[in-house]
Amino acid sequence: MIQPLENLVEALCRLPTIGRKSALRLALYLLERPQDELDNLSRNIASIKSRIRICKRCFNYGEADLCDVCSSPKRDQTLMCVVEKPSDVLVFEKSGIFRGLYHVLGGVLSPINGITADKLHIAQLRARLDNEDIRELILGLGASAEAETTCLYLARIFAKRKFKISILARGVPAGTELEYIDQLTLNQALHERNEISYGDKES
Amino acid sequence: MIQPLENLVEALCRLPTIGRKSALRLALYLLERPQDELDNLSRNIASIKSRIRICKRCFNYGEADLCDVCSSPKRDQTLMCVVEKPSDVLVFEKSGIFRGLYHVLGGVLSPINGITADKLHIAQLRARLDNEDIRELILGLGASAEAETTCLYLARIFAKRKFKISILARGVPAGTELEYIDQLTLNQALHERNEISYGDKES
Repeated sequence: MIQPLENLVEALCRLPTIGRKSALRLALYLLERPQDELDNLSRNIASIKSRIRICKRCFNYGEADLCDVCSSPKRDQTLMCVVEKPSDVLVFEKSGIFRGLYHVLGGVLSPINGITADKLHIAQLRARLDNEDIRELILGLGASAEAETTCLYLARIFAKRKFKISILARGVPAGTELEYIDQLTLNQALHERNEISYGDKES
Repeated sequence: MIQPLENLVEALCRLPTIGRKSALRLALYLLERPQDELDNLSRNIASIKSRIRICKRCFNYGEADLCDVCSSPKRDQTLMCVVEKPSDVLVFEKSGIFRGLYHVLGGVLSPINGITADKLHIAQLRARLDNEDIRELILGLGASAEAETTCLYLARIFAKRKFKISILARGVPAGTELEYIDQLTLNQALHERNEISYGDKES
């Protein structure tokens, strides 16, 4: 293959989920597009890091010292959700249901990979909980073994504080048939089962 | 979502096979990469069009007036394969079996979409066949209805020339079980069946 095309294919190959075949398809597609479209994509890629900053308060992505959530007066300042990554904030924000603040840990505890409590933004979380008037701390981490461990760790170190600590419910995900549910999820769903009642009970 | 991230996601979304979700995943990945990696990708995208030229003889991609195939003294100058797109040349070259020249049509006939013979590089093909000493013209187009029509068209207009005209065999693709073969392919495979014999026949 000719060198300029090979170079582009190699650069595209480094992206996640893009193998050599997809990279070649993308490269050939790009070759047929107008130059201004290529310039636009190229500019956006080159400038993304310099245009995005990390919020000084919650470590979410933002464009200024404070992210959009931290600088909004409309958010509930007494509710804080701990998440693993900035992209998890996007997941919560997309749903639009959560109106509190966030705190991005920057990972979950994984001692085997050298990720101990001091590698995460836990000291900063502690400082915020000392200074902010938080009513409830929601542990919005995933349900991997390491995330669960991190939840337990946080629940333990903040156990004596005045605020409530909660964790996202574990159970059957929406739209899933029971036959595709793993045993652990089923156990959790059964354990955390809720009573339901439609309308008034018969008297 | 914050604007710089949104801009990058929108630019990535325009790529084929990349939806909004994949685009966001790619954008978040890029955000975590070193700047020189982003610069490299960005530069390759922006410069691809200016660095690749169309071969004046066969319309394949190249880096100079003539593409690598046309400028190679090692290629069989009496064998020409007609293909639809420059990327089809890559497919043939990857196999390494074909050692002749190419001619890229730039599409296939599709009158309903306004692609008539004058929109393709057919006049240039005719000129080449007038001037070059071709022994065999291989119609290396696909097997879509429009590609088949284009093959028949080319076979007709060059029917009276001295060179041989051939077309890629149609049949069962390698590694495919017969139950997944469509009826048309099966008909063609049956129609174009070949006699086989292993070793000497019994006397």
